[in-house]
Amino acid sequence: MNKVCVIGAGSTRYGKLSEGVVELAVNASREAIKSAGIEARDVQYAFISNVFGVADRQVHLAPVIMSDLGIANVPGLTVESACGSGSIAFREAYANVAAGFYDVVLVVGVEKVTHTGTARSTTLFSYCSDFFYEGGNGVSFPGLFASMARAYMHKYDASEEDLALVAVKNHEHGLLNPKAHIRKRITVGDVLESPPVASPLKLLDCCPFSDGASAVILASEEYAKSHHLEYVEVIGSGRGASPATLQDREDITTIPSTRAAAQQAFKQAKIEPKDVDFAEVHDCFTIAEIVDIEDLGFFPKGKGVEAVRQGITKLGGDLPINPSGGLKSKGHPIGATGVGQVVEVYEQLLGRAGERQVKGAEIALTHNFGATGASCAVHIFRRP
Amino acid sequence: MNKVCVIGAGSTRYGKLSEGVVELAVNASREAIKSAGIEARDVQYAFISNVFGVADRQVHLAPVIMSDLGIANVPGLTVESACGSGSIAFREAYANVAAGFYDVVLVVGVEKVTHTGTARSTTLFSYCSDFFYEGGNGVSFPGLFASMARAYMHKYDASEEDLALVAVKNHEHGLLNPKAHIRKRITVGDVLESPPVASPLKLLDCCPFSDGASAVILASEEYAKSHHLEYVEVIGSGRGASPATLQDREDITTIPSTRAAAQQAFKQAKIEPKDVDFAEVHDCFTIAEIVDIEDLGFFPKGKGVEAVRQGITKLGGDLPINPSGGLKSKGHPIGATGVGQVVEVYEQLLGRAGERQVKGAEIALTHNFGATGASCAVHIFRRP
Repeated sequence: MNKVCVIGAGSTRYGKLSEGVVELAVNASREAIKSAGIEARDVQYAFISNVFGVADRQVHLAPVIMSDLGIANVPGLTVESACGSGSIAFREAYANVAAGFYDVVLVVGVEKVTHTGTARSTTLFSYCSDFFYEGGNGVSFPGLFASMARAYMHKYDASEEDLALVAVKNHEHGLLNPKAHIRKRITVGDVLESPPVASPLKLLDCCPFSDGASAVILASEEYAKSHHLEYVEVIGSGRGASPATLQDREDITTIPSTRAAAQQAFKQAKIEPKDVDFAEVHDCFTIAEIVDIEDLGFFPKGKGVEAVRQGITKLGGDLPINPSGGLKSKGHPIGATGVGQVVEVYEQLLGRAGERQVKGAEIALTHNFGATGASCAVHIFRRP
Repeated sequence: MNKVCVIGAGSTRYGKLSEGVVELAVNASREAIKSAGIEARDVQYAFISNVFGVADRQVHLAPVIMSDLGIANVPGLTVESACGSGSIAFREAYANVAAGFYDVVLVVGVEKVTHTGTARSTTLFSYCSDFFYEGGNGVSFPGLFASMARAYMHKYDASEEDLALVAVKNHEHGLLNPKAHIRKRITVGDVLESPPVASPLKLLDCCPFSDGASAVILASEEYAKSHHLEYVEVIGSGRGASPATLQDREDITTIPSTRAAAQQAFKQAKIEPKDVDFAEVHDCFTIAEIVDIEDLGFFPKGKGVEAVRQGITKLGGDLPINPSGGLKSKGHPIGATGVGQVVEVYEQLLGRAGERQVKGAEIALTHNFGATGASCAVHIFRRP
């Protein structure tokens, strides 16, 4: 199999944006192509990560985006796996380059939903749960993650203040990210006093609905070297799955798909969790980040919350988590999120992350899942 | 790269069905797994082809389908490329098996839209065009294919009767397919007298909206052989793309994506169009089938219509096209269509196609595109 690397990355701002789904995707793609130092015509294949194109009245996105990029002859397709779509699109692109089908592949994730309003967006998002058992019976994602939070707090003696610390940290990181959706310093008190959404989760425990697009260019290492391009290596790729509904899981303080994907990625990368310098993980709700960093193997089960208390996961700590601001502050345009994590890793590992730069970072991990972790992909990257 | 084969196939009936999107997909998958002679737990990865899960309030289909199949630990994802989704999902599964990522992969295509009614279905389908230029300005797919039909009739001296011959043939084939949506013998007169939809296309020139699901199991040839399974080889796989809008094409009597995908597939298979014994092609409208069989290289440009007149493309003719009944009679549950073509090829090449069996068939081709051919995949199969 070919060695695969990321040779370019680009992103729009995340937030409530006026551009349409195609314009967002094209803008991020152009930035990624430019940063790679290649031309659009060098792209041989494209993966589009998108969930609710139908909300902006445009599905079948690849031909429209490729046409706008001036490369209508380049085939592509859309990958959907709820909020995990971006990392799973990246995984499929990785497989195609690793297998030698293509040398240069564009992955662009995009979402445009805020124009539909909160009620419609919430309804659309509920279609990502097991609708027969969950969404259709009125259980929203805040409700599902609230169940996970309650179980975790009970089992591991964690508090609402502990959850709030995750939000405070990610907002601090997001302040350093010019493209983040919510750039606002908050305190633990702010989180605790914000309106309850699904107890124990308050408004500031939840990530926002966002619009936005992120894009990366994958290439075979041979292509990157022979064209003298700067790049970041992909050294591990893993996929995992969990039962679709929470009710079918044995323990809702852990997400099996994360564990499976991480094990696979670490095995391929031939490294251990302790070798990772920073990670971008799926913090759709504050509880998720705590569960993630345990399931990824960074901390023993039940000890993630202690790491948060000690500031280990802050920028400047031993293992910065979500230096970009994460879904919580950077935002969560669901099709874009997993691709945006790779954008952050690319910029960090090449030393281009500005004020939020993780000093001396050589190995980074991305973790992104769909729904309550029913689908998941983990990738590990190294500065060559 | 590993040699890849199809070891199992299954399909629901196509039509206006009462089952939901998940149930349809699970039923087709179970049939495919059973026909392969494997257990569900042998499946290592899954590609779901679906466009409008949102119409049945269920996206993020893989975890729900895998959970229902009793293999919640098996990762999957949804692939969308409008009406070409099925063949493109198949292509991605092929890439994963060829690359050695997995030995056994399920591809299941599914669509459930008829419950939304004709107006809503038509609106949803219009999102598969370039909505800014086409659908959003009131141009429907019948209108777009009517433009192609007019151009073809003008350029190559074809008539409305010629188009009707395609519908008559495919309805004859569909009569022999117990799972077909529209099983009704029609005459050229019936087609010409049916209500105009977008002149020169009449109602009976158009395929129906259908619900349904089709599934196939791909495996490495090594896996199939070591487990003593019956199989059909995949000997060629190609992808192509065309400008998203018709207005950006130089000539609308040909579809560039079909030509590109076919050239790639034939090159890989190391055979020529004359070596193919039968083909399943994308006949969403009668004009499409004529354009397809030329672009695939079976007949010179402008001569496809002559082949239709001579009965060459009928069952019993030199090159049967759409022995299943095609989209026109078998039906067009858009996410399932491209996968259903592979189901037909699997059954035909193993001699299990009953009354519609193509005698002595050894090599077959599938061709499936999205929208007006903006995205396309072509696959070639051989009886070992």
